[in-house]
Amino acid sequence: MRVLFQAVGALGGRVGARFGVAGMSSTGLMSTMPAPAKSTQASITRGIRQVASCSSSAFAAAVASSSFLASSTASAAMPAQLSVVQPFSSSTSLGAQGGGGGGGGGGGVEGRRGERTQSWQPSLASSLSKVRALVYSENGPPESVLRMAEAHPLPEVGHGQVLVKVLAAPINPSDINQIEGTYPNRPPLPAVGGNEGVGVVTDVGAGVKNLKVDDLVVAARYGLGTWREQLVCEEDDLIQVLPDSPLEYAATVVVNPTTAYRMLEDFVNLVEGDVVVQNGATSMVGQAVIQLANVKGVRTINIIRDRPDLAETVRNLQDLGATVVVTEEQAEDRSIMKHVMGDLPPPVLGLNCVGGSSASSILKVLAPGGTIVTYGGMAKKPVTVSASQLIFKDVIVRGFWVSRWVELHSKEERLEMINHLLQLAKDEKLKLQIEKVPFAEYQGALEKALGKRGHSKAKQLLRGCSKAKQLLVME
Amino acid sequence: MRVLFQAVGALGGRVGARFGVAGMSSTGLMSTMPAPAKSTQASITRGIRQVASCSSSAFAAAVASSSFLASSTASAAMPAQLSVVQPFSSSTSLGAQGGGGGGGGGGGVEGRRGERTQSWQPSLASSLSKVRALVYSENGPPESVLRMAEAHPLPEVGHGQVLVKVLAAPINPSDINQIEGTYPNRPPLPAVGGNEGVGVVTDVGAGVKNLKVDDLVVAARYGLGTWREQLVCEEDDLIQVLPDSPLEYAATVVVNPTTAYRMLEDFVNLVEGDVVVQNGATSMVGQAVIQLANVKGVRTINIIRDRPDLAETVRNLQDLGATVVVTEEQAEDRSIMKHVMGDLPPPVLGLNCVGGSSASSILKVLAPGGTIVTYGGMAKKPVTVSASQLIFKDVIVRGFWVSRWVELHSKEERLEMINHLLQLAKDEKLKLQIEKVPFAEYQGALEKALGKRGHSKAKQLLRGCSKAKQLLVME
Repeated sequence: MRVLFQAVGALGGRVGARFGVAGMSSTGLMSTMPAPAKSTQASITRGIRQVASCSSSAFAAAVASSSFLASSTASAAMPAQLSVVQPFSSSTSLGAQGGGGGGGGGGGVEGRRGERTQSWQPSLASSLSKVRALVYSENGPPESVLRMAEAHPLPEVGHGQVLVKVLAAPINPSDINQIEGTYPNRPPLPAVGGNEGVGVVTDVGAGVKNLKVDDLVVAARYGLGTWREQLVCEEDDLIQVLPDSPLEYAATVVVNPTTAYRMLEDFVNLVEGDVVVQNGATSMVGQAVIQLANVKGVRTINIIRDRPDLAETVRNLQDLGATVVVTEEQAEDRSIMKHVMGDLPPPVLGLNCVGGSSASSILKVLAPGGTIVTYGGMAKKPVTVSASQLIFKDVIVRGFWVSRWVELHSKEERLEMINHLLQLAKDEKLKLQIEKVPFAEYQGALEKALGKRGHSKAKQLLRGCSKAKQLLVME
Repeated sequence: MRVLFQAVGALGGRVGARFGVAGMSSTGLMSTMPAPAKSTQASITRGIRQVASCSSSAFAAAVASSSFLASSTASAAMPAQLSVVQPFSSSTSLGAQGGGGGGGGGGGVEGRRGERTQSWQPSLASSLSKVRALVYSENGPPESVLRMAEAHPLPEVGHGQVLVKVLAAPINPSDINQIEGTYPNRPPLPAVGGNEGVGVVTDVGAGVKNLKVDDLVVAARYGLGTWREQLVCEEDDLIQVLPDSPLEYAATVVVNPTTAYRMLEDFVNLVEGDVVVQNGATSMVGQAVIQLANVKGVRTINIIRDRPDLAETVRNLQDLGATVVVTEEQAEDRSIMKHVMGDLPPPVLGLNCVGGSSASSILKVLAPGGTIVTYGGMAKKPVTVSASQLIFKDVIVRGFWVSRWVELHSKEERLEMINHLLQLAKDEKLKLQIEKVPFAEYQGALEKALGKRGHSKAKQLLRGCSKAKQLLVME
């Protein structure tokens, strides 16, 4: 891979020393998750430390003040020329949607290697002229508080730091919650949005040990601010991935597939023939669960919401390898579940991103001694478990947060997992429905991610929410 | 210890081959626990097998039919002479209560070794003349379906079997649920009530390897039917305990202190200085938790129901070593909890036998990553846990059932634990409030255990329910 871009200036210099470990933000169905109480939050964030990234906060602060960098953590404050680009007009955004992006109706296997060399190649000219970023200075509705800002020259690459050309970054529900201010992990404001993404190393500073120019990297920690064209960060803020990784998978591997993978690995020792039951099965995590379970020879019972395009949705999940697909209403009926489960053994693992009665449906069919893992709370209703289920049925009720997993495990363990997942993507055993959106057309992508497109038409709403992940492409 | 009684006849002979492992019945606060759904129950009891004990069902069947033993599992059916003793009249029972038994107001440290040799020595004459048992032929309210039956001659002691003179057996809430038919473990009817108790071996059959006459033993498995004066059972149905164990503790060690001990050992690696929070702290399990935690240098926050004698109850728990005692209402108030907890670190373990809002109070104060273990459902309300608590706070929600622990662990492990607990009782580090009741006056004890004494006066009701365990003394 060629050097795609070299640093041509400095903004922010070396800002902020090394920070404590922190994870990427969480899972695919957190968009309706209420924020934890303040006391809880304080406890949780104890170990996570401040998440102001290297040049992330510097960039944002500079943009916000339209002035010199004034970060307290800056060791070298450099003058910066800044301008703020107003969000694109509604018609522009809608136009982007109208075209269906790159994958609205696709099967989720776009952007293979051969295609990427063309479509992903950045324009040197545009990179030289500007460094754009999606910045917010206050918490609130992303469509209101986010703005496309532009700054140049670029930050200086300090000791132990690298310059990264961001190639693509997804919009995860947790990114939205973070901007709204309802997510436990919140970077100091102003901040650049986005926590996940893939890029290529375009410059390395002195003392960098493990990365070199052209390395393909993904964000290793929460708070990097991936919704921008270039960033300078510590070497350790990145994970180098397989050089021939499909880029759209590399861009999205850290949150959703990782969540699915860990939930299948860490709670129950699943063996071939076992059964897993999950709700919210159309989510990105849910789709990954189906496919990763298949790789292990594990079957899946998938609970989804009723919807106008139910038959098509069921078919899509079956195409991914779903063993059983039922609606939430069906899952509440014991006789229906008995019928559809047929000879399947009772599930030893349940995955819940909904809560309320949908979680109860999982608990009902779970095998004695089984575990239910909650990773989202879409219904905004708690998990309710009877004393009998706990005492006599010995069910175990747990939660999973990928940030915590990252916090507690080594970078090597994580690297191994990520490359394993990317290899599965290369082998087409792990497909994700991704809709590529040009960076400039972020508003349309945001609206889809927020489920605001076609709000009056349920079908479009559902499509916007669950059918494809919006992936910002920085070119 | 002398031979207290020798077998003089035979009833039932060797009935039933060896049965699969099964545990003693559960915990101190199960009396209001709803039975699990049938499907759950079927799954749970898969591993527990039928619990018809050696001569237990034979005795009961013979009593019920007033005829010869007709058990299908009997290898030798012997003729038996039977008579049924009608329950004592209400006035008799009330008289027994009026006397306050042996320990109504005591500090729970009665019956030390020196005392036992007098008070526990059986009358040879009465033992020779009759073998009484509390039998039920149908499930229902214990006060209606239980009757004192009398049979002689005694059963023959077969190969691998021993004859035991039962010295004392408690009334546990689970015994009552079993008779009512609301407990998962139910022996075939007719059955002798009672699942826990202490006795002395008075005869051994051929092939018995580990027990000899005079050994002090406790029931090792569920379904022995301990509410009778003598029983014949397999050697393996018994656990030999320290010969100088305080009898009332040996009689009650298998269910409640064991439950408390395992919950403190098996879920969180508690170290000195840690804090445990529990509700239902006045229960037998709760009292054991306080004391066993103290032995480990672990402090306890104890949530109890408001009651007329609150100050006295708080004082009693503090005397046992409780660090903090609060009412359920106080526990729901975050600021009160903050105040009373002072400098205590947040609890890493919560023990719940109530459910509903009381369980929620535990969840609120639990440390991130903490575990809440449910062992009862007194409020008949489920445990409700939010997605945030599961995901961000990483709380773990579990259940404990002592029967399952027994099922999954070796007799040696159990023996070691029981003798450890009995040693603590000897050292006065583990005190239980026990009210001794003569076997013949079982109805009064049952009424107290059922909380029916003084139903209109809350104080007496609470006293009857929580202040002392009713222990039937077979003399």
